[in-house]
Amino acid sequence: MLNFEFLNPTKIIFGKGSHKQVGQQVAQYSHNVLLHYGGTFLKSSGVLTEITTSLKQAGITYTELPGVVPNPRLSLVHQGVALCREKNIDFILAVGGGSVIDSAKAIAAGVPYTGDVWDFYSSDKRPETMLPVGVVLTIPAAGSESSDGTVITNQQGPYKRSFVSPLAFPKFAMLNPELCYTLPANQIAAGGADILAHVMERYFSRTPNTDMSDRLCEGTMKAIMSNVPKALQNPQNYDTWAEVMWAGNVAHNGLLGKGKQEDWASHAIEHEVSAQYDIAHGAGLAIIFPAWMKYVYQEDTSRFVQFAVRVLGVDLPYQNPDAIALEGIRRVEAFFKSLGLATTFTQAGIGDEHFALMAERACGNGTQGSFKKLNKQDVMAIFELAK
Amino acid sequence: MLNFEFLNPTKIIFGKGSHKQVGQQVAQYSHNVLLHYGGTFLKSSGVLTEITTSLKQAGITYTELPGVVPNPRLSLVHQGVALCREKNIDFILAVGGGSVIDSAKAIAAGVPYTGDVWDFYSSDKRPETMLPVGVVLTIPAAGSESSDGTVITNQQGPYKRSFVSPLAFPKFAMLNPELCYTLPANQIAAGGADILAHVMERYFSRTPNTDMSDRLCEGTMKAIMSNVPKALQNPQNYDTWAEVMWAGNVAHNGLLGKGKQEDWASHAIEHEVSAQYDIAHGAGLAIIFPAWMKYVYQEDTSRFVQFAVRVLGVDLPYQNPDAIALEGIRRVEAFFKSLGLATTFTQAGIGDEHFALMAERACGNGTQGSFKKLNKQDVMAIFELAK
Repeated sequence: MLNFEFLNPTKIIFGKGSHKQVGQQVAQYSHNVLLHYGGTFLKSSGVLTEITTSLKQAGITYTELPGVVPNPRLSLVHQGVALCREKNIDFILAVGGGSVIDSAKAIAAGVPYTGDVWDFYSSDKRPETMLPVGVVLTIPAAGSESSDGTVITNQQGPYKRSFVSPLAFPKFAMLNPELCYTLPANQIAAGGADILAHVMERYFSRTPNTDMSDRLCEGTMKAIMSNVPKALQNPQNYDTWAEVMWAGNVAHNGLLGKGKQEDWASHAIEHEVSAQYDIAHGAGLAIIFPAWMKYVYQEDTSRFVQFAVRVLGVDLPYQNPDAIALEGIRRVEAFFKSLGLATTFTQAGIGDEHFALMAERACGNGTQGSFKKLNKQDVMAIFELAK
Repeated sequence: MLNFEFLNPTKIIFGKGSHKQVGQQVAQYSHNVLLHYGGTFLKSSGVLTEITTSLKQAGITYTELPGVVPNPRLSLVHQGVALCREKNIDFILAVGGGSVIDSAKAIAAGVPYTGDVWDFYSSDKRPETMLPVGVVLTIPAAGSESSDGTVITNQQGPYKRSFVSPLAFPKFAMLNPELCYTLPANQIAAGGADILAHVMERYFSRTPNTDMSDRLCEGTMKAIMSNVPKALQNPQNYDTWAEVMWAGNVAHNGLLGKGKQEDWASHAIEHEVSAQYDIAHGAGLAIIFPAWMKYVYQEDTSRFVQFAVRVLGVDLPYQNPDAIALEGIRRVEAFFKSLGLATTFTQAGIGDEHFALMAERACGNGTQGSFKKLNKQDVMAIFELAK
């Protein structure tokens, strides 16, 4: 196990009706806030009214900035920064999923910064201060509600880039499973793939002696794989969503990777796919991750055997570890397919025209990942496996 | 799943040599601290010198208060409170295991309080403010290094009582597995039993639909049960201690019981045993917990079947759930025995002379536990099963 530090400072408020008390939480930080969200559905569903009612009851002035889209845009972030400065806003309330939260974090970093907030995404520069952010989560997927990361797309490129900073942890995150009842199937599926991928990025590590961490990851993956299909089948079930929402949070709150070197190559590669084709991050991961697994598993077959046996119940003769590992990978692919996700580029309608560009940008001047350090040629090979 | 809130504010600093940087952590809070610990072994091993060297390098003045014993005493807490007031000390650094940490928390609660700190342990009164506490952990067991609880023994009774408060979370906890190398076998065993019990108190719940939480508990229990025996066999192995220390922390940091009603009857009953006979808490749990299991399992046999199958690998015909549940309980008892612990009162040299008094005090005017609400007669029956 490697040395580590761990502290997740985001207060989780989990349960039925929690978002109706959001005003009380926000009032601890500010009375002049930006209310940041996506489309019009929040309005028509009545959730936005419940939130604004709570804000008003707590004496909070709010300015709305809707319009966040999947793969959230730098252009809207710039608008948000200008709006906050104009109105002396000092708190961002994000109502939505990972895209809204990441956009909120970007605005929070941009307001007190004299340069362009893109600096933090495109270089090693990190914010010295950020406005506080609060979250009402409506889509369990990205885990951004209590993570230290944010991912933004700059359409001039296009580039999809991220940064992490301890300042980017939200102050609080309200997780009400009832808000998931209306999610469309494609978002449920992509969200489930993203949650599973967050655990797999941590699980597939070359660090030896990580038994406790392995066990936590394995348990979380089992919970994800048994509950996401149930959410798809019956999206109005509170108990199922409670499992998915809690698993989605734990999957990315930092705990599951402590003491080990994490990988994150599949995420980095997928960001290039989303940047080029604007597909949902989770949908892209369902294509990239199985191909990555096939390409790298022989670096440490025993880890893929452990995964196959413990998480997926593969029960084949131990004499042939490769067969066990490959059966595990096949089952991950089958899981994604069972959610209705494409697991190849062809199925997703994506050709090979940008393979070289995406591989180039994924690796920059170096490599990606740690289970196997991947250079451009490796990423190209993964793209070929994912064709 | 029940509604819940979760935030653990203790910063975990985990790894080799971490305690040698304790001065830097303490300096963020105070430069005049109480250095609270147990016996002379810390001195002879050189660990105390490494800590005081780090404190001096950070310009920190410290006053030593050694002498904490297992089942830590109110009398020493009173001394600590007086000492801190006399010297205007405003931070307590605990170096040790649960007893030292709990004693430190008691002093931290007592210093700013005008009454007797025992009020917090003997009534519903809770501290309005506490001094900050930091921890260098030397015994993985109690989980007090990042919990909100403290347990103290008042020899006038004798009573062993606890309180929980969000103010009781330490500011930081330094976990260096190397400090466990010199633990004697009885402390390793009792600590392992305590850690496992912390998870079982959360796992054996009647709250339905707690899949994610179950999985995390199950994984943690597997890590504990596979690593504690290894620590006993080879106490100089860093990797084994790293697993035990990390599992011991996660077992009691609050995460594993979120969204469910926890039990805690075995802990409450055991506190009365420790109060009367001054045995180690974990050693008492090895006697009480198997008896509690036998007494309550039929309240929800399915939960004990799940435990037996998933955690302990019991592989018997599903037609007879009682047989599976009982085999699981037998294996828990066998696990405690394998650590060298007594699993009956008789083996521990304890007679039945205080059964009635202990049952009376464990229940007070009400009941204990939630998996089955236990009254005095129930506790007496558990004592009989543990004879």
